[in-house]
Amino acid sequence: MNHTDDNYIFELPMKVRDYEVDAEGIVNNANYLHYLEVTRHEFCEWAGLSFARMHADGIYPVLSRVEIDYKHPLGLGQSMVSKLKLTRKGPLFVFIQDIFTPEGLPVVRARVEVACLENGRLTRGEVLARAFSRFLQ
Amino acid sequence: MNHTDDNYIFELPMKVRDYEVDAEGIVNNANYLHYLEVTRHEFCEWAGLSFARMHADGIYPVLSRVEIDYKHPLGLGQSMVSKLKLTRKGPLFVFIQDIFTPEGLPVVRARVEVACLENGRLTRGEVLARAFSRFLQ
Amino acid sequence: MNHTDDNYIFELPMKVRDYEVDAEGIVNNANYLHYLEVTRHEFCEWAGLSFARMHADGIYPVLSRVEIDYKHPLGLGQSMVSKLKLTRKGPLFVFIQDIFTPEGLPVVRARVEVACLENGRLTRGEVLARAFSRFLQ
Amino acid sequence: MNHTDDNYIFELPMKVRDYEVDAEGIVNNANYLHYLEVTRHEFCEWAGLSFARMHADGIYPVLSRVEIDYKHPLGLGQSMVSKLKLTRKGPLFVFIQDIFTPEGLPVVRARVEVACLENGRLTRGEVLARAFSRFLQ
Repeated sequence: MNHTDDNYIFELPMKVRDYEVDAEGIVNNANYLHYLEVTRHEFCEWAGLSFARMHADGIYPVLSRVEIDYKHPLGLGQSMVSKLKLTRKGPLFVFIQDIFTPEGLPVVRARVEVACLENGRLTRGEVLARAFSRFLQ
Repeated sequence: MNHTDDNYIFELPMKVRDYEVDAEGIVNNANYLHYLEVTRHEFCEWAGLSFARMHADGIYPVLSRVEIDYKHPLGLGQSMVSKLKLTRKGPLFVFIQDIFTPEGLPVVRARVEVACLENGRLTRGEVLARAFSRFLQ
Repeated sequence: MNHTDDNYIFELPMKVRDYEVDAEGIVNNANYLHYLEVTRHEFCEWAGLSFARMHADGIYPVLSRVEIDYKHPLGLGQSMVSKLKLTRKGPLFVFIQDIFTPEGLPVVRARVEVACLENGRLTRGEVLARAFSRFLQ
Repeated sequence: MNHTDDNYIFELPMKVRDYEVDAEGIVNNANYLHYLEVTRHEFCEWAGLSFARMHADGIYPVLSRVEIDYKHPLGLGQSMVSKLKLTRKGPLFVFIQDIFTPEGLPVVRARVEVACLENGRLTRGEVLARAFSRFLQ
């Protein structure tokens, strides 16, 4: 696979922390969801999306569904690049999130659906859509 | 939904730990994967499956894919029941794992595919299949 | 050591979760602080102390200092008993928290100082002192 | 306090990850031990100390004791600088580890004692002492 063909809109270099690795010497499966979350939040910050302001407005993005394929496990001290693109499916925002080794080997491939709550009710996501407009594919 | 109709083969009562809850007052998304993993391992232990013996034989079950739908968030101090059933898809073992509130409200619904490596190579899973034979649906 | 001589006021049986174990096959050092926190919170709940009511009253207990000696590491699937007693040092509440194997071998010994904030300011801890009065040594 | 006077030998900039923050909006106490561990490991890597080679030689550094004072809590999205110096106390290596806000406000102050096991027995730590010789104070 030539992943450089894929039009990711954000990349974050990361490195495995020792405590994320389990007794079999590989990163525990749940920690990849942490990596994906960190990547989304760094993307949002980079994109100028203010969670503080959204919360002040009563708007909360929440995870609705995650699909994740584990391709190649990472071990102690390994580096990775976490990449992201963004699409929309009705009221949901869909993050396509792939993590690779520095050499480009796929580590995980994930699809993360995010819904937007406004004062506790599901919205059509207009606030996020405006904030993300230049990134949506 | 009447989840008592579903033929789960194993149930584990659990309780949210405070450090699993994030700044929005709900359990962080990755921690549900921890709950699911704990449930699978308690099930395996209960079913008499010895990881120690499997490892001595060079056999390692590894996660291949997870699909998880977030239905209803848990907060501080809340209890849950984590339920599981097991099917097979070719060489893969598929755990259907659902977590409910004590009242039966769905918290997450997940599908977890596990592959079996023997000395680093994907196997047809015969060892696990024998161990799980009376539980497979 | 005969730990049954020690006058602990609360005991919680716990079990290592696989993801808490690191690549060296032992529980990661930070997870013992999680065990200690879970024990304190279960103690408070058992003692009838309501965090919800305290927070409604603007009262927040916060960790001030932890001293922890690592005596004997726990590994995959091991059980433990987490024990606690409580003293007071001026405005601080001091939890003496020891974790043992089921056979009574010390795992960690810890001393945890908790201060009490009321509307952001350090208090003399009168609210907690009343709640804990029958347990203080 | 003018911490620039202190002769730290290693500094690591870090940033709070959202999942490390609890329901009260501050970093959970156990996560600071993770920050300290990451800092020690990055220091060792930077200092050219190979854990892989040590393990091949049957040498394992293990935590013996941690003392940590919580000075000022970090919240969502905050940055920090984690600083370290190293002394020796008999067979033990003592890491003095302090974390500061970017403005220099103390977040935590910690003292971490590490022992060195060789084939399961406590050693006088000569291997680590040689590796650390130019950093020991």
